[in-house]
Amino acid sequence: METAAEPILRVAAVCGSIRKASFNRGLLRAAAEVCEESIPGLRIDHLDISDLPLMNPDLEIVTDGVKSFPPVVEAFRDKVRQADCILFAAPEYNYSIASPLKNALDWASRGKNCWADKPAAIVSAGGGFGGGRSQYHLRQVGVFLDLHFINKPELFVPAFQPPPKFDSDGNVIDAEIREELKHVLLSLQAFTLRLQKKE
Amino acid sequence: METAAEPILRVAAVCGSIRKASFNRGLLRAAAEVCEESIPGLRIDHLDISDLPLMNPDLEIVTDGVKSFPPVVEAFRDKVRQADCILFAAPEYNYSIASPLKNALDWASRGKNCWADKPAAIVSAGGGFGGGRSQYHLRQVGVFLDLHFINKPELFVPAFQPPPKFDSDGNVIDAEIREELKHVLLSLQAFTLRLQKKE
Amino acid sequence: METAAEPILRVAAVCGSIRKASFNRGLLRAAAEVCEESIPGLRIDHLDISDLPLMNPDLEIVTDGVKSFPPVVEAFRDKVRQADCILFAAPEYNYSIASPLKNALDWASRGKNCWADKPAAIVSAGGGFGGGRSQYHLRQVGVFLDLHFINKPELFVPAFQPPPKFDSDGNVIDAEIREELKHVLLSLQAFTLRLQKKE
Amino acid sequence: METAAEPILRVAAVCGSIRKASFNRGLLRAAAEVCEESIPGLRIDHLDISDLPLMNPDLEIVTDGVKSFPPVVEAFRDKVRQADCILFAAPEYNYSIASPLKNALDWASRGKNCWADKPAAIVSAGGGFGGGRSQYHLRQVGVFLDLHFINKPELFVPAFQPPPKFDSDGNVIDAEIREELKHVLLSLQAFTLRLQKKE
Repeated sequence: METAAEPILRVAAVCGSIRKASFNRGLLRAAAEVCEESIPGLRIDHLDISDLPLMNPDLEIVTDGVKSFPPVVEAFRDKVRQADCILFAAPEYNYSIASPLKNALDWASRGKNCWADKPAAIVSAGGGFGGGRSQYHLRQVGVFLDLHFINKPELFVPAFQPPPKFDSDGNVIDAEIREELKHVLLSLQAFTLRLQKKE
Repeated sequence: METAAEPILRVAAVCGSIRKASFNRGLLRAAAEVCEESIPGLRIDHLDISDLPLMNPDLEIVTDGVKSFPPVVEAFRDKVRQADCILFAAPEYNYSIASPLKNALDWASRGKNCWADKPAAIVSAGGGFGGGRSQYHLRQVGVFLDLHFINKPELFVPAFQPPPKFDSDGNVIDAEIREELKHVLLSLQAFTLRLQKKE
Repeated sequence: METAAEPILRVAAVCGSIRKASFNRGLLRAAAEVCEESIPGLRIDHLDISDLPLMNPDLEIVTDGVKSFPPVVEAFRDKVRQADCILFAAPEYNYSIASPLKNALDWASRGKNCWADKPAAIVSAGGGFGGGRSQYHLRQVGVFLDLHFINKPELFVPAFQPPPKFDSDGNVIDAEIREELKHVLLSLQAFTLRLQKKE
Repeated sequence: METAAEPILRVAAVCGSIRKASFNRGLLRAAAEVCEESIPGLRIDHLDISDLPLMNPDLEIVTDGVKSFPPVVEAFRDKVRQADCILFAAPEYNYSIASPLKNALDWASRGKNCWADKPAAIVSAGGGFGGGRSQYHLRQVGVFLDLHFINKPELFVPAFQPPPKFDSDGNVIDAEIREELKHVLLSLQAFTLRLQKKE
């Protein structure tokens, strides 16, 4: 039962890779499971970004001063708008944000910015810094989008270091990562409540 | 006439926005005109990135250990590979690289990286810093892609400050910008020749 | 009179330049005046960083597991700790944070991090982007220091563009900048109260 | 014997930490040993930055239009100027450049920039990303200073991961790191010669 004392926060989960067996999407699935199992105050909603067209302002239509977007974009924007906070899984592509994620960030920023004033957290998996370089570029994007990122904990999953972290479908198979995801989620929950003054 | 002493360098020009009347594409058109008028050693080839699919490794096919890409991606990769150096027009979207540009960067990096060891320059137009934040993220991407960016001059065109810089089709209408573009192009030419040891 | 409904927040103001006639210190003096004139809920305390030694962990003494610092460092750390929030004036030196500011940030981070969980805002004055590149590097530092920066408004003062912004002593002589400083301060106040849940 | 065919390049080695047992200074000592043992074309000169005063333009004296600096600063600037290329050991302090290194970078940039047009490489040791965040901020600084950084290989030494990398004096005790340092040095040598067109 949802009460004033225990609001259920809706977390929009956005995965930067649209590859089927993406490790980063696996992180979001694991995050959803962690919430179901042990964080009743958070409910994760996966947002699909794979069908968004390549960002092009020429696809926008202005009618009577109101900007409208292709249906698939409108649907994505609605889901962002309805969320209490955002969880990004942000793979690093070429030392920066993955293009599908940047595309989604850009679409939901147009006209009335849908990301505004939302708390957010980032997780990532990959080689090298485990996606780290992507996270700092995303944080800079967040300044303009007016996202409020939690500072800690940060989660960078070294996808290719032993022990194995993911199976071939991108599912998390490492208990420690689930534990680290839980800490990220609890921090996001606390920061969201703090900013909503409902803690 | 092309001689050993005066090689004609092929510049691949990539505009980060796919909007028709893009100011940044206008910068690249002006750059091409500047080359035709006064830099015989540079020939600009515009690369279209508007038809590239959203980056997805699942679209790649591996046959006998060789990776192949959708035809439109292969065509783009070929053009990057053939260039002696790169000129990016890099608008700033939400304090970082425009998603269509990041998408193009990502596609040509897959498998055998097509950008490797190429000299490059960046120009941009926009509000605020004239696209500046995008340029520094692009430079970080260039570390992984092994691009060699010129350091100076940098060109940030404040698109909305008087006097008018562009017409409504995105054409450059300011003589000073053409002069600044010329300095960027000459620096790119000199750095390319220096790296090719043909100066 | 200070009441529960109207707490007076202590703002530690840190100027990144230790030059006497620094424009950036001028911004902090103007900010203090703005608070005195029109924001009774904020009281600015200028922190001097000019006497801090060059950061060197060898200057730290550990006694019975407790780390102590040279007296001038201890004094600075105390003032940071006592503040409710931080206002940085962050000039850009060579496209990044001014060395005296980085030095101060580093000293107060050692041992028990004094910056932790404090709201903060950044202003800067300079050529080019008005100090902008410094601000984004400072924001990345803030992730580790656990500072909560306001996202908006950002203030980049183009120090050398007409009309004159500063006199030769670094005093702000432009009314519009005072107005912009006021908006930054009000946003910092609101964000601090929001994070303290006393708004 | 030094010949035209085999010039000996002078590498100015700058360590960002001034702590005695610094791991990063250990990397530079190991680099010097590697050069002596197996790269006859490179000679490493350690530059001391521990006595530089905290950056303050008020310490500069202008006589007849010529700017002069405190003697210790002049001596450092001379050594930078004489180098063919630069090797930075750049520890990460609070997710950015260590303050002593930023201080040194700033002093040698004043008046006539001493770093201009020099090839450079970065190595670092530390926890987390092995100093990685510092390296990217340093690369952005290099755009303004007109440094030409090698892109590859990058070296991030995870100082606290097994097997042990350093002894308690900061000496490198891991053979693999020496091998990686060698690759960085050979790449710096090749890029310097390429830019000097003497390869």
